[in-house]
Amino acid sequence: MKTTPDALAALIGQRVDLIDTPALVVDLDAMDRNIQRMADFARKHQVRWRPHAKMHKSAELALLLQQAGAQGVCVQKVSEAEALAAGGVLDITITNEVIAMPKLHRAARLATALASRGGRLGVAVDSAEGIERLAEAMAQSGSDAGMDVLVEIDVGQGRCGVPPGEAAVALALAVARHPRLRFAGLQAYHGRAQHFASAGERREAIARTVQQAAHTRDLIEAAGLPVPLVTGSGTGTLVNEAASGVYGELQAGSFLFMDADYARNERDPAQPAFEHALFVKTQVISVRDTHAVCDAGHKSHAIDSGLPTVAHLPADRALRYANGGDEHGILYAEGDKARLPALGRMLWLVPGHCDPTVNLHDFMIGVRGGLAQGVVERIIRVDARGALS
Amino acid sequence: MKTTPDALAALIGQRVDLIDTPALVVDLDAMDRNIQRMADFARKHQVRWRPHAKMHKSAELALLLQQAGAQGVCVQKVSEAEALAAGGVLDITITNEVIAMPKLHRAARLATALASRGGRLGVAVDSAEGIERLAEAMAQSGSDAGMDVLVEIDVGQGRCGVPPGEAAVALALAVARHPRLRFAGLQAYHGRAQHFASAGERREAIARTVQQAAHTRDLIEAAGLPVPLVTGSGTGTLVNEAASGVYGELQAGSFLFMDADYARNERDPAQPAFEHALFVKTQVISVRDTHAVCDAGHKSHAIDSGLPTVAHLPADRALRYANGGDEHGILYAEGDKARLPALGRMLWLVPGHCDPTVNLHDFMIGVRGGLAQGVVERIIRVDARGALS
Repeated sequence: MKTTPDALAALIGQRVDLIDTPALVVDLDAMDRNIQRMADFARKHQVRWRPHAKMHKSAELALLLQQAGAQGVCVQKVSEAEALAAGGVLDITITNEVIAMPKLHRAARLATALASRGGRLGVAVDSAEGIERLAEAMAQSGSDAGMDVLVEIDVGQGRCGVPPGEAAVALALAVARHPRLRFAGLQAYHGRAQHFASAGERREAIARTVQQAAHTRDLIEAAGLPVPLVTGSGTGTLVNEAASGVYGELQAGSFLFMDADYARNERDPAQPAFEHALFVKTQVISVRDTHAVCDAGHKSHAIDSGLPTVAHLPADRALRYANGGDEHGILYAEGDKARLPALGRMLWLVPGHCDPTVNLHDFMIGVRGGLAQGVVERIIRVDARGALS
Repeated sequence: MKTTPDALAALIGQRVDLIDTPALVVDLDAMDRNIQRMADFARKHQVRWRPHAKMHKSAELALLLQQAGAQGVCVQKVSEAEALAAGGVLDITITNEVIAMPKLHRAARLATALASRGGRLGVAVDSAEGIERLAEAMAQSGSDAGMDVLVEIDVGQGRCGVPPGEAAVALALAVARHPRLRFAGLQAYHGRAQHFASAGERREAIARTVQQAAHTRDLIEAAGLPVPLVTGSGTGTLVNEAASGVYGELQAGSFLFMDADYARNERDPAQPAFEHALFVKTQVISVRDTHAVCDAGHKSHAIDSGLPTVAHLPADRALRYANGGDEHGILYAEGDKARLPALGRMLWLVPGHCDPTVNLHDFMIGVRGGLAQGVVERIIRVDARGALS
């Protein structure tokens, strides 16, 4: 396991301006407020929350969320589950299909280890062959620990999952036939809908999603098998699934940090006012007549959901960030009174998409007291960085 | 320093099909042929080559390139230089501006350490203030080791660098006034031109670049200061700079692996026939009526220069890769006789852009004997992965 490098450990207690650039910085006060908002929201709607750790990939943050009431974590990969389990997380759902036998053997071992510590492992399936492989791995593990199995239905994402309806019934019944597999419910996530720009579009899309999930649940129960849970949702649509009466668990993860992409979309009035808590600190390294250049490019932040915005500037002094390649950003003066920043100036970027941005960094630097005058409180390890398998 | 994980070390000597997915795999035979082609090309044109290590970030590969005749490495960041120096690379040029005093102190220490082992460090500047800061850091280091300083001119990239001409003369003379700084020449890289689709466009763009660099060089020499080197170029345009008589050094790095973006562009007949040597191995984890889903998304490969292509399929059985998010790729049957791949099938992707793809991985798996029947020969550490500062 990686330890914190000396250069980062030495930062603890230091003022924000001593953080070298580019660096991934968490505004801990803003993050704590986001956690409180989410906890309040889930309590009000009487729904469980299991934040997706594919976003933060940190055992420390997973445990912090659990202290605030979260059920456990979701992950996408077996290796993410292993990394978080090593950091003390005991309740893990892999919201994705696992097909390779070596990975399934690892999952079976992990299920056994978690069960022995009072935890559990869940995994999604969307094929009969996937169920057979999983059952074989569990049988070969020789353990009595069971595995929770969610049947994934495609409720609009157009990726994995079987169509809602009869295909899902057949899979649920197939799961239930295996002694070491527990049918745990339906995985029903509409990922694309998270990013629809208007709140109305999102509401309509999730109305269909909810209807499909409810219909599939009813068919499975009519076949004699209880459906303990329908799980899914994300930060963009959680108000809709929470109010549905069908979803028992929310998997939203991005609320913790938020990103520029979510901020660009219309907020549903019912959605908690989550705020940006994740920033890339960058420095101006070159100034020209027409533009300035900073030291953060797309090796510092992901650009799949758009470019970062420059934070904490009044509108009339706004700067626009343009892509300068892997290691550079180009800054243009945009506000009426905006001037190009001086050589050496420190700036704060809000990444376009938090998940793949965090995955570029080994550590996040947690700041208490705000980004202007705060101090470094802790270094948060990205335990599952690069955990792909 | 990170060591190779047991799971990867155990792969050595094993057949390709045991590599779990997603994984970054180097076809070592193809890579070796690329190195030979580049060495032959540089010898024929009597030009030095200093491949950019921002691409591979590996000390092992840097040393392999040096054995084939490369001069040393270029990097973009002080932390990359530190990581490669720790792996035994002694001749390093930072082709980028360094402004923060803590980084400049680190660079000064590194210059001293490299000089003591017979090596050298170079860095680019594009401002009088940058030169003063660098000189101050070198003075405070108390060492007699000098630093090579390249004045960066903007020859079409529109990013860092001063305009060609008088501004560069002033900076070159300013460098020469400092006892511990050695004016080492001009950094003149037209990055955008690397990706122009037609060979004619690239030739025209670099003709202007060469003219600007030659003019600036002549002005500096007319001011009484010799210009030991003009350096720059990349894989897309190296035929043009190599034939210019002005460039003494080529910084091209991508030729080692190539990527889908370079392959999409028209090849100049004079350019060596570099071949793909970097692949993401992926597995099909879900099959639907309309598409299949594989386990490599943009946490496995960068998408800033386009999506990956699916390699090693005959044209009439081609598959098209579409973006499926952070952890998934969507595969469509494209060729006339193409059918969707079966659940569990292994496929090979050619990343759109090799540099930021390598930066997502801690290790590359080197295969000898081809991707169909070969065996794992070695695990190549990405020493400077995430080295941003």
